[in-house]
Order: sequence, then C-alpha cells, then structure tokens
Amino acid sequence: MKRIGMLTSGGDCQALNAAMRGVVKTMKNSKEEVEIYGFLDGYRGLIYSNYRMLQSSDFSGILTKGGTILGTSRTPFKTITEPDENGLDKVKAMKQNYYKLNLDCLVILGGNGTHKTANLLREEGLNVVTLPKTIDNDLYGTDMTFGFQSAVDIATDCIDCIHTTADSHGRVFIVEVMGHKVGWLTLNAGMASGADIILIPEIPYDIDKVVDAIENRKKNGSRFTILAVAEGAISKQDAKLSKKEYKKKLENRKYPSVAYEVAEQIKEKTGEEVRVTVPGHTQRGGSPCPYDRVFASRLGSEAAKLILDGEYGFMVGYKNREIVKVPLEEVAGKLKYVSPDASIVKEAKMLGISFGD
Amino acid sequence: MKRIGMLTSGGDCQALNAAMRGVVKTMKNSKEEVEIYGFLDGYRGLIYSNYRMLQSSDFSGILTKGGTILGTSRTPFKTITEPDENGLDKVKAMKQNYYKLNLDCLVILGGNGTHKTANLLREEGLNVVTLPKTIDNDLYGTDMTFGFQSAVDIATDCIDCIHTTADSHGRVFIVEVMGHKVGWLTLNAGMASGADIILIPEIPYDIDKVVDAIENRKKNGSRFTILAVAEGAISKQDAKLSKKEYKKKLENRKYPSVAYEVAEQIKEKTGEEVRVTVPGHTQRGGSPCPYDRVFASRLGSEAAKLILDGEYGFMVGYKNREIVKVPLEEVAGKLKYVSPDASIVKEAKMLGISFGD
Amino acid sequence: MKRIGMLTSGGDCQALNAAMRGVVKTMKNSKEEVEIYGFLDGYRGLIYSNYRMLQSSDFSGILTKGGTILGTSRTPFKTITEPDENGLDKVKAMKQNYYKLNLDCLVILGGNGTHKTANLLREEGLNVVTLPKTIDNDLYGTDMTFGFQSAVDIATDCIDCIHTTADSHGRVFIVEVMGHKVGWLTLNAGMASGADIILIPEIPYDIDKVVDAIENRKKNGSRFTILAVAEGAISKQDAKLSKKEYKKKLENRKYPSVAYEVAEQIKEKTGEEVRVTVPGHTQRGGSPCPYDRVFASRLGSEAAKLILDGEYGFMVGYKNREIVKVPLEEVAGKLKYVSPDASIVKEAKMLGISFGD
Amino acid sequence: MKRIGMLTSGGDCQALNAAMRGVVKTMKNSKEEVEIYGFLDGYRGLIYSNYRMLQSSDFSGILTKGGTILGTSRTPFKTITEPDENGLDKVKAMKQNYYKLNLDCLVILGGNGTHKTANLLREEGLNVVTLPKTIDNDLYGTDMTFGFQSAVDIATDCIDCIHTTADSHGRVFIVEVMGHKVGWLTLNAGMASGADIILIPEIPYDIDKVVDAIENRKKNGSRFTILAVAEGAISKQDAKLSKKEYKKKLENRKYPSVAYEVAEQIKEKTGEEVRVTVPGHTQRGGSPCPYDRVFASRLGSEAAKLILDGEYGFMVGYKNREIVKVPLEEVAGKLKYVSPDASIVKEAKMLGISFGD
Repeated sequence: MKRIGMLTSGGDCQALNAAMRGVVKTMKNSKEEVEIYGFLDGYRGLIYSNYRMLQSSDFSGILTKGGTILGTSRTPFKTITEPDENGLDKVKAMKQNYYKLNLDCLVILGGNGTHKTANLLREEGLNVVTLPKTIDNDLYGTDMTFGFQSAVDIATDCIDCIHTTADSHGRVFIVEVMGHKVGWLTLNAGMASGADIILIPEIPYDIDKVVDAIENRKKNGSRFTILAVAEGAISKQDAKLSKKEYKKKLENRKYPSVAYEVAEQIKEKTGEEVRVTVPGHTQRGGSPCPYDRVFASRLGSEAAKLILDGEYGFMVGYKNREIVKVPLEEVAGKLKYVSPDASIVKEAKMLGISFGD
Repeated sequence: MKRIGMLTSGGDCQALNAAMRGVVKTMKNSKEEVEIYGFLDGYRGLIYSNYRMLQSSDFSGILTKGGTILGTSRTPFKTITEPDENGLDKVKAMKQNYYKLNLDCLVILGGNGTHKTANLLREEGLNVVTLPKTIDNDLYGTDMTFGFQSAVDIATDCIDCIHTTADSHGRVFIVEVMGHKVGWLTLNAGMASGADIILIPEIPYDIDKVVDAIENRKKNGSRFTILAVAEGAISKQDAKLSKKEYKKKLENRKYPSVAYEVAEQIKEKTGEEVRVTVPGHTQRGGSPCPYDRVFASRLGSEAAKLILDGEYGFMVGYKNREIVKVPLEEVAGKLKYVSPDASIVKEAKMLGISFGD
Repeated sequence: MKRIGMLTSGGDCQALNAAMRGVVKTMKNSKEEVEIYGFLDGYRGLIYSNYRMLQSSDFSGILTKGGTILGTSRTPFKTITEPDENGLDKVKAMKQNYYKLNLDCLVILGGNGTHKTANLLREEGLNVVTLPKTIDNDLYGTDMTFGFQSAVDIATDCIDCIHTTADSHGRVFIVEVMGHKVGWLTLNAGMASGADIILIPEIPYDIDKVVDAIENRKKNGSRFTILAVAEGAISKQDAKLSKKEYKKKLENRKYPSVAYEVAEQIKEKTGEEVRVTVPGHTQRGGSPCPYDRVFASRLGSEAAKLILDGEYGFMVGYKNREIVKVPLEEVAGKLKYVSPDASIVKEAKMLGISFGD
Repeated sequence: MKRIGMLTSGGDCQALNAAMRGVVKTMKNSKEEVEIYGFLDGYRGLIYSNYRMLQSSDFSGILTKGGTILGTSRTPFKTITEPDENGLDKVKAMKQNYYKLNLDCLVILGGNGTHKTANLLREEGLNVVTLPKTIDNDLYGTDMTFGFQSAVDIATDCIDCIHTTADSHGRVFIVEVMGHKVGWLTLNAGMASGADIILIPEIPYDIDKVVDAIENRKKNGSRFTILAVAEGAISKQDAKLSKKEYKKKLENRKYPSVAYEVAEQIKEKTGEEVRVTVPGHTQRGGSPCPYDRVFASRLGSEAAKLILDGEYGFMVGYKNREIVKVPLEEVAGKLKYVSPDASIVKEAKMLGISFGD
C-alpha cells in the first residue's frame, strides 16, 4: 500500500493533467494498492492541509484537458521559506501535513521555482519525485519539458496569423512571445513561423542591427518584416547594467514591455508603422498538443515506477531520447539557457534570421 | 469583352482572396472575354495607377489563403477627398485612371470607410460593385460580412486557452476583442467561449455591476471569471460625454486600452489579481474558416454575375439567407449595431452572462 | 416548480452538450425552481426508466465538449412503435415514465427520426419541446441545425489535407462526406475546400460528365482533381430505379460505398490512379465550432423560455436569422433537400464546380 | 559557384517544402553563387530530364505549405533498376542528365525506397546529400524524420473526434492509422489520444487478448473502447506465415484492410457494434506542424552546409538531439522498427494500454 500526495505548482501549462493521469493510471495498474491525495493550488494546499482524495474517475477524460485539476499558485522560493502572515512556518507545516497523512511520497509537478522548494523538502527528509513542467523548456537536467511544444504551437499559430496581415498591409509586426529569462519558446516559434528577426534574452540585441535587417528586407523587395521578441529580450547596453540597475530601468520605462520599446525605436529610426501583438497567457492554455500528451504520459508513468520501486529524490527527465531520473540537487536552482553558439542558433542564422547581434 | 478593375481597401481580413477568386473564376467561366486589373494597396493603387494584369493562375490556391494578394491600405474618406502632398486631386486621379484603362467596372472589397469612397466614385459616374469585408460585421445592408466568422473563431480559441489557465490559477481574466464601435465580434466570441461578462460599445457598463457579477460567481463557488471586452467598450459615465470630450479623455488615459482600465478598476474594488490578454491583429489573419470561404466565394460569384449583367452601383450582401444586391447609397456611411434589445443579447442574459448594465 | 426530462437521440453530433447547457442555465437563472431528469441513451432511457437527476455542476465546462453527456442511441421510428423483445409497448412505457416522474415537459434533441417519435409523444398528450440536431442540416422547418457547421469544418479540413497530397502526386482523389439523403454537408465542405467535382444525392450524376470534368482539368494544365462525394450520391441510371431495386443493387454491389464505385469507374475510363478517403465518424465528433456553440446555446435558451412560458409542442428552429418556434407536426417526417435550382448550386456552377449533371 | 539538383521522391509528406526552403535559403545566404535545378515528380524528372531552374521567389511562403512544389512519384527501387517501356536504362539516364547539367550535387528528399536509389546513385559516382522524409519515422540512422509529428497530430485529431462519438454511443471504434511495416505513428497517435488498444506490425496480436481487453473495460464500467490499428497490424498466426503465404492471404481476404478484419472478429466474439474509420491520405497532407517546420528547416540548412563544404554521400539525420551526417550506405535498405521492449512500449503498457500480445 502506497500513499501518495500530489501537487502542481507555478504558472500552469498544458499536459499537467496528462502527466498526473500517467502517474495515477500506472499506480492503479500496478499490484500495489494506492491512495492519492491531491493538494490544491500548489504548495499552498500542502501548507494549509487543503486536499482531497483522488479517484480513478478524477483522471478520466483529462488527457486532453489543459490546466490542472488540482489548481496551482505561484509561491516563490523566498516566500516559502518565510513565515506566513500569521507567523506559520510553512516548511514545518508542509512536513507536518506530510507525516500526518502518513505519505510515502510527494509527486510535485512544476518548473524552476517549484524545484527549488521540492529539493528543500527532500533535504528536510521527505520523499519527493518531480515532473518537469514549463512552457519555457528552461529546466536544467532535461532536454525537454512538457508544455513547451504546446506553447510553441500556439505562438506559431499566432505569428502565422500575423503573417498574412503583415503581408497585406506591408507593415513591420512584433509578436511578443513568453519567456523572461530564456529564449527557447521564442526561438522555436520564430523559426516555425518564418519570423525574420528573433530577439531572445541570451543574445542581447543592437537596435541598429535590427533596423539594418528590416532595411535589408525592404531593399530585397519584401513588403513586411516580422519580429518574434521574447518578453525578456534585452539590448546590448542594458545587458551591461547590473541586475539592480536594469530592474530600476524597467520600472521607470514608459512601455508596458520590451516589445513596445523595440517597436518605438524601429518607428523612430525607419519611419515604418510597427504593430505589436501580445498573445500572453494563451500560450499556456488550451489542450496539450499530441507531442506533450505522449511525453507527459510517459514521464508520469516512469515517475510512478520510481515510486513503486521506492526510488525518491529525483526529477523524471528526458536525455538523449531516453527517460531518465535526475537527482533533485542537480536540478534545483539552475536554468537551461539557449547558447548563442548552439547549432539551432547557427542554423537559424544560416536561414537568414537576424538576432540583432 | 469586359475590363474589370479590382481593389481591396481598409484593414485586411480573412477570405478577401476567396472573394476575389470567386469574382474571377465566375468571369472566366462565362462566355464573356475578361481582363482583370488588380490595383495594389487599396485606393492608393487606383490613385497612383499602380496595378497589374491578373491571370487565372494568380487565383489558383488562394481560396484558403489569408490576407489579400493585392495588398491593402487604410485610406479614410476624409483623406481621399483631400488633395495629396503634391496637390493631386485624388478623386479626379481615380476617375482618370479608370477611364484611361477603359474599365467597365470596379470591384471594391472593403468595410465602412471603403464603402463611403466607393459610393462617391459611383456618384462621380464610375461603375462600381462592392463586396462586404470586415471582421466587425458592422456593415449596413447585409446580415453578414466575410471575415467575421473567422475572427470569431480566432477570438474564441484565444478565450478557450485562457479558460484553462484562469481555472487553474483561480484568476479574473480579461480578453480584449477587436471592435471599436460595434460588439458583434466580442458578443459572439464571448458566447462561444463561455465568457461570464461581455462588455460591448452598444451597452455601456457600470463597473459596479461588473464587480457584482464577479463577486456573485465567487459566492457560487467559481474560482475564476472571464471577461470578453470589446476595444470600444465604454462605461455609462463616459457614454454621457460628448464625442470630443471622450476622445480627449482617451488621449490622456494612462492605460493602453479600455481592457486595462477595467482590469485596474476590478483590482481596486475586489483585490483580485486580474490579467489582460490582447490577441490583437491575429484576429484578422490566417486562413479563412470554411464558413467564410463558402460565403465569400458565393458573394464573389454573384458580384461577377451583376457585372456580366451590366448591373452597377450595388454592394452584394446577404439578407434572410439570400444573396442580394443593395444600392450603394443605402450602405454608405451607416453602421449595423448590436441592439441592446436584440434577441441574441436577451438570450445571452438568460444564459447568465452579464453585460455590466 | 418545473420538472423537466431531457434526452438526446439519434447519431450524436457536436454542440449537443452546448444546447443542453443552454436549456439548463436558462432554467436555473429563471425565478422558477427546476428539476432536470436526464434520460440515458436516447429514448431507451425514457422507455426503461433509466435516468439521473442533473445538477448545475453536470453542465459546467461542457460548452466546448463534443458528444452528449446523456449518451444516445439510434432508435428508428419503426422500432419505437413496435413492442420490445419482452412484449413491452414502448410508447406506453414512455408515457408511464413521464407521468410517474410527474414531468412538465420533455426536451428532446435529435434529427429526423427523433422528431417523428417526438411528434408521436406530443400526439399522445405529452408536453414536448425539441431542438434540431444533425450534421446533415436536413431538418425541415429550420434554416440551420447545430452540428452542421462543425461537420463542415472537419470535412473541409480533411479535403484541405488531401489537396496538398493530390497536388504533389498529380492524382484524382475522392473524399466521401457524410450524408445519405441530403447533400448540404458535401456541398458546403466541397465549396469551402475548393473541390472540383461535387456529387450529392439530390443531383444524380452521369459518370461520363464526371470524367469529362476531370479530362477538362487535365487539358487546362491541372495535375489533380478532387471530388467531394456524398455517401448517398447516386447515378442518373440508379436514380431511375425503384427504392427497392436500388436497395437490392446496393446490397449486391462489390464496393463498400458509392465513392469506391465512382473511383473504379473513373479509373476504367481515364486510366488515372484514384484514391478514396473516408473520414467517416470523425465528422460528428470533437469540440463544436464557435458558430455551433453560439447557435446551440441560443436555441437551448429559447427552448427553456418556451417551457417557462408553458408553450409546448414546438421545435425551436431558425428562420431568416430569427429563432422561432415551429409546430412539431410541421417538422416530423419531412426532409430539407438541396434544390438543384438553389442559388448556392448555381453559384457553385458559376465557380466552375461540376456536379456531373 | 555550385549547381545543385533537387528532387522529392516517394509518398509526399508535410514539411518537404520547408526542408527545401532550408536548403535554398542557406545556399543563397552563403557567399557561394548557386543555381538550383528542381527535377519534377521524383526520380522521373531526373530520368527524363524534366526540370526547371528554381528562384528564391519559388521558396517564398512555402514554409507552411504541405506537399511538395516539385511534385513526387513512387518509383520503387526495383523499377528504377529496370529499363523503361522504351528500353531506356534509367540509372544511366539519371547519370547522363546529372553530368549534362554539370551538377555538383543532388539533394534528394525521401524515405526508405528513395534512399536505396540515392545510395545507388552515390555508388555510381554521383554526389548526393539526402534528407529523411516520412510520416512513418522508420528511416534507419535518424531518431526522427520530418512529416512524422504532423501525421501524429492529424491521426490524433481524428481519434480525438472519434472519442466523443464513441462515448456518446457506447461503441467499439477502430481507427486505422498509416504504417504498413512499422508502428511509430500508430503508437504515438494512440498514446496521444488515449486509445485503449494499439495494434502495430512489430507486436503481433492475439484476437482473444484484444477481446479480453474490451471485455475488461466493460467490466470496469467503460461504455466504449477505442483501438488504434496500424495498416500493417498482424495477428500472431499470420506472423508465422512466410512472406509469400501472407501476401497471398491478404490478396484473398474479403476485407479491405486489417482494421475491418479485426472489427469483424470483435463483432463475432463480443456481439458489440464496431465501427471503422480510415483517415488515410489526410495523414500525409496539410500544413506541417511547428515541430516539423523547425526540424525540416534545420535539416535543410545543415544539408546546404554539407554541400558548401563539399561533403557528399550523407543523409542529414538527427541523433541524441544533434543534427548529424550519416553515411548513405548505413541507411539504405534498413528500417527502424518499434522494439517490443522499447521503453515507450513498456510505458504504454503501464498506462493500461493493451497491445493484444
């Protein structure tokens, strides 16, 4: 008999339900008897003992459903390790609830922040197995995260739509793609949709180079230019600022986001009309794409196997087309960036895409 | 032998190509010999004699293609009737080019502004047949315009995506839908996606009623509320302002759009986290939906028939499920609004949707 | 206090759930107290008293869900009026269950067969309100049925996919579209996807005319031809047979369906490779399209209004863009065919589409 | 100055155009001058010297377009090495045309058969670089082929649609997925759509085990069962036959395909209604999915790089998330099968999916 607690934490994404279904179906198909406790709204549910027993029927029909049936919340590592407004020690509370329910293991689905906390719980002695969820694909220790391909699909659809209208009107268009720190999503959606210029956090841009790329297209007879710009795109000058200075600059900026600033600069320097589109949270919603459904199901299944085998303290990841277990201490607190020297970047450049660098 | 000029004007939308293909295929299938001149980038092409002869091959494979192969531009009625920067009389120039090419008729695809100009050209003695294009479905004299259903599909997809993330996070979400003056698109996309609150220009809202609707949902156990807000949504107070006063207010407003203002007010009054998504120009891009492809093809075909029959001065419209010809003077300068008493609005209210009124 | 029974009958289609949600939401939002009994698997549930009380929560999140939460079954009119294998009088049983539950009204969602039975129940003295569900759009008394536009979208997607492969290989392709008796679905999907030849039951084809159309395309330089063929397409010769003779012929035919027969004939007469694709039941599955969601919600809402007003014996239909009530006796047993003289058929022909007639 | 010949051969699939665009854009962006000759309809164009010079404009806007702008044809290895009906030695003809045009290299996009011929041309002394195209993902020497993920998406969509109708009617449904020799597509589409039973060529099935799985679902309260069956699924008995015997058996079989045979057997043994859907060629059509667009673009770009570097005789493949060059002699004539012991198969089984073994 195994007693499992499960929670989803951080910004939601596609295939969270598929992954949980994978865990539960595999547990239920094993010889082991299993009880599953679902904690609601991320770590909050574990802290305040807000949970419900989950039945097989809860997982029927959710393979294709976006979001998370458990709810989620963003609880940064910093706030987790601080007492709540009533002085409650949150980490202690989580441990108590874990032991009170006599759990064998926690299954935690989340991204970077979530993994920091998950690793802390492991250090505190709890049995933890995690699953890599994020549209950003920036989790260290795994080649792929679920949610990523679904988000690429949505952002690509969006840029595809913009393509026809950009062409009709002969305009410069900027599509702001999610990703504050890493550019995988922007890079892939940009390449998939034939964006002409891609700006990502890892490759700071020079606005003059961006303008050159636009002017070159015009010279070659193109009516329009499309830019895929990550939320966290940064100029070469700004990249030289300290973290603190840059944060300050952002706070005082008159533009709601980098995309609008880039738009303004292009307008000034070229006289072109520039339009900005922000698909925003749509990128993390909707039904997971088939790739993510298969991938998340497989990860969920292997997570269940680890638990059945009594192997704890791992994230279930993906390396060289194999599903692998990665020690949580190797994952926590690290990000997987796009290297400016990565072959995909080189290939994008060979294809004529400008990174403004 | 017929010599036809064709142009697309105003903001682009889906199925412009399908409609033009309909015109051309029907002409080419008739016994009449036909020459088609495509003017580029809207009226601008007609003014400055920028055109190319179109072949059947130009229309092959474009039924499913978004945008317009002729390009388009926004040229407000006011600027059309004013001389250009070199003192050129634009209306006179258009007439000259029409006669120089010895055209039998102009086929003009566009929305409201476009129809004003088309009617002016008719008054000036040119033969004109128009087609009703707009994602707003606000053209007077026709039950339906092409582009509308495709835009509904895209806006609905967007709100569908937001639904799963709103549910997971338990948040209030606002999706800003296109439509400055009329609410058909917001109303239909909102109803199609199960939005809880719909704000449209024709039904000014009271922010307290909006907040009540949100609070009521919470009382009834709902974790989230989704608002579909038209670009031109307006509060009851603002609706009392003169056009001039309101324009001034808009210019001085610190929010990029009404949606952000509504978000701010909800935040203040409820303490809820509110997120705004702006799909923007994606709503007018991409491949037309099957409904629009059939509809635009049919309209195009009937436009060709009018021309072959020598009947000019009409918009080809849709009334009571029949394709009809509507005199241009009846169409020009009028908008088709959502009546607050329309049955669709009543039905939406019966379904529990709040309009904040 | 109103006690409502509800059932879905016949082949399922998209937006059944949306329509039921419309009924229930409107009832629950009214001042009336309401109890809803859902009979399972069509009339079978009413006959054998297999039902469950439905709560508001049953209708949460189902606007976008295909299929029917009540289940359905095909129960032809003939079998309804015959006793079951245990000698049970089904009509009598339905009446008894209606009265035993003390129902005020039955809400019945279905197509042609379903409406015959619904009308019979009305004649037997039960209060009935119906909703027009079918992907065929062949219900008499309404311009539109829900499910239709969703099915058009799926069939169109399918032909769109075939288009690229037909073009690449330079082949003749046949896509068999659902519709045994009427051609609305085939006609609309064919026009939406640019099919070159459309064969529907209402316009018997001459295989030589079909072959001519293919040869003509080749002469004009086209590499491929796409045919959209309704399940019930029929040749001119076969159309002259009596119903009985034709049925016999079908039974003895070596081809699984008309599409395969047409393929064989084209192969023989042209030497061309011909491929057949049968999307089949996919056409009635999946999430309803936005048009159907809005339409079904509106119909459901107006059905609830009728019940609240105590108006029974009607189908809620759609006429000239208004939602109307149509007496059941006018609907039952009649089909709405595509007239060979309908303007949409004429327009299709003007566009160059061959009907093989 | 480089003179490149290019051709696409075998059954078409998604992203062929994207891959060719990748090759051409990269060549044109290099310092080298380039001439590109496109041979039409596969090897046939090379044999009969049917080609056209390709311009950059030919590759504009084709990233998202299905099919192949060069056309394709199936030319089995056996027919390639045999003289044509006029006694022409095809291999010799291809060599002559290669030398006549003074080509530096042939870029050949295709699957298994295509690679055999490509390797033969290499052995004959021609410079060849190939790209792995197939919806089957069965090419040896690469982890992935383009077209595969797009086909998974389409097959999954199809099964998703079937899901709602299967559930509504409480039926057994079989969806036949493409794949005569390998099961990657069926396996992935089946897992993505939550199919209950998956039958693939590599894991022969026992019909009694299939029936058991259906009966078990019924016992556990499921109304329906969905089977994803590969075209080449084979029973344990048939797997024991010699290739020749099995071929004979197939020819004499009364069913159009295995799926129908399985359906018949299930009907007999369970008395259940079983429906079969055959999406067929739709699986290789339509716009490539974003994954395939990025992947094919990257492969195309690296193929161009090989040519620019004068490295010939390779397929550009994908291994452990790196794009690699694989010697053609290692690829030709081999297939990449699903191993019954592969972890994805084990995971599928842990999730409760039956393979009928």
